[in-house]
Amino acid sequence: MATLVGGIEAGGTKFVCVVGTPDGEIKDSVRFPTEAPEQTMANVFKFFDQYDVKVIAIGSFGPIDINEDSATYGYITSTPKPGWTNFDFVGAMEKQYPGVKILWTTDVNIAGYGEYKAGAAKGHKNVLYVTVGTGVGVGYVQDGKFFQGFSHPEGGHMLPRRYPGDEFKGVCPYHGSCIEGLTAGPAVEARAGKKGHLLAVDDKVWDYEAFYLAQACATYTVTFRPDIIVFGGGVMKQEQLFDKIRKQTAELLNGYLDTPNMEDYIVHVGLGDDAGIKGCLLWAGDNL
Amino acid sequence: MATLVGGIEAGGTKFVCVVGTPDGEIKDSVRFPTEAPEQTMANVFKFFDQYDVKVIAIGSFGPIDINEDSATYGYITSTPKPGWTNFDFVGAMEKQYPGVKILWTTDVNIAGYGEYKAGAAKGHKNVLYVTVGTGVGVGYVQDGKFFQGFSHPEGGHMLPRRYPGDEFKGVCPYHGSCIEGLTAGPAVEARAGKKGHLLAVDDKVWDYEAFYLAQACATYTVTFRPDIIVFGGGVMKQEQLFDKIRKQTAELLNGYLDTPNMEDYIVHVGLGDDAGIKGCLLWAGDNL
Repeated sequence: MATLVGGIEAGGTKFVCVVGTPDGEIKDSVRFPTEAPEQTMANVFKFFDQYDVKVIAIGSFGPIDINEDSATYGYITSTPKPGWTNFDFVGAMEKQYPGVKILWTTDVNIAGYGEYKAGAAKGHKNVLYVTVGTGVGVGYVQDGKFFQGFSHPEGGHMLPRRYPGDEFKGVCPYHGSCIEGLTAGPAVEARAGKKGHLLAVDDKVWDYEAFYLAQACATYTVTFRPDIIVFGGGVMKQEQLFDKIRKQTAELLNGYLDTPNMEDYIVHVGLGDDAGIKGCLLWAGDNL
Repeated sequence: MATLVGGIEAGGTKFVCVVGTPDGEIKDSVRFPTEAPEQTMANVFKFFDQYDVKVIAIGSFGPIDINEDSATYGYITSTPKPGWTNFDFVGAMEKQYPGVKILWTTDVNIAGYGEYKAGAAKGHKNVLYVTVGTGVGVGYVQDGKFFQGFSHPEGGHMLPRRYPGDEFKGVCPYHGSCIEGLTAGPAVEARAGKKGHLLAVDDKVWDYEAFYLAQACATYTVTFRPDIIVFGGGVMKQEQLFDKIRKQTAELLNGYLDTPNMEDYIVHVGLGDDAGIKGCLLWAGDNL
């Protein structure tokens, strides 16, 4: 039987555990809601206890500690999520599975890795992955490595200029009207009074959405300088957003610097909802 | 005699050529205005023809092509500066000095390297250098390597939220009121009617300046995640800006993510006006 590797897409609302081949073929998976760590990890162990894997890659909700020199490497850090603050995720896995290599990064990085290896960004060197879902997260894969500095990017928390006349306050508990506070799923719902998938494709909400996400793309362009920006997450299933975002990003940059063609530059996730779990398997496979 | 290395700080208004020791001690230097390439390069050659150096590091104004796989690697690209558009700087140097290793990066990266090795950021791993002078430029040194993607960062060209009531249009020919258009030296002069060093330290101009630069710092923090932000350039000689920028950056981030203490995080260039030429020598020295 072929070697199997494992992965965990640890989201703030649900966990997905997966085993599969090192080239990303899913053999088994399970999903369950994110409860307190004790119950959640019991579900994780129940799944992986069935398999003999050499590597498990984790893409976790955050903020997380990814600094290998840190005493709290492998921890979820300052999340407001009950019970998870300062939870030693990697430590818990290593204790349960001694001898198994545990890889650790953010949920957005791992989805970006999936896109880089096998999705919309295949063949690109500098891949920025942006999810617009429950929150707005940014992961950056450069030459197969995850970009980080003092910690991982939190590129959803920039303050955009406001759409003229838009007085919606935004829902980010820290920044109000940052990109996440204005464009993530809960912002769409708070603004429109219902979930985004229930709105018409020409609802005014999508104009706001594109206006703010184009500013995010322009700022990512002058900072990260990616080859490609891949958008995933529930909100970005609204395909009508893409052309608006491309057009406005180009207008904002105004020809100042070279970018790829906007059609090739700002694109939809290729692996759909599997970007994260495929990313886990592929990253684990590359670290066998 | 000790080995000598060379450097060129190629700015949009002046060039500085330097030879010195691989650990950054300046032995000789010359500065002259940036004229058309032919005259300017004649001055460069006149200086280096006197010395036997194995490596010359260039930190150039931009935009420049730093992609080693590109056919135009080593070129200054789309600058509006007369005569310099698509000038093959590295090619001209290699032709004049066969066998000499020519290193090539941006002027801000090279100053950042100086600060990383021997200035205010010594001992830090992720060093963001920001110059606020003729323009606003951003260089990022990570573990001694220059961050780049599709090309180098152009982090001066982000659009900040406007200071309430501030109707100054900004002077960036591409973006009007981007960070560069609102805060660089020419913006200060256009706003105040005189150069910044002639203004009182409590002039209202510095409130605008700090307001916009704090937004830049907040955005750099959530994208680049540096360990330290070092500010250089003529405008940042206004020491009164630093406390304002630190305070407002902290307010904007609002405790969302960990950063170093603001006093240690947002700091003044340590090598003063020598950051660039020292950076050249040190980078050349590390590539002997």
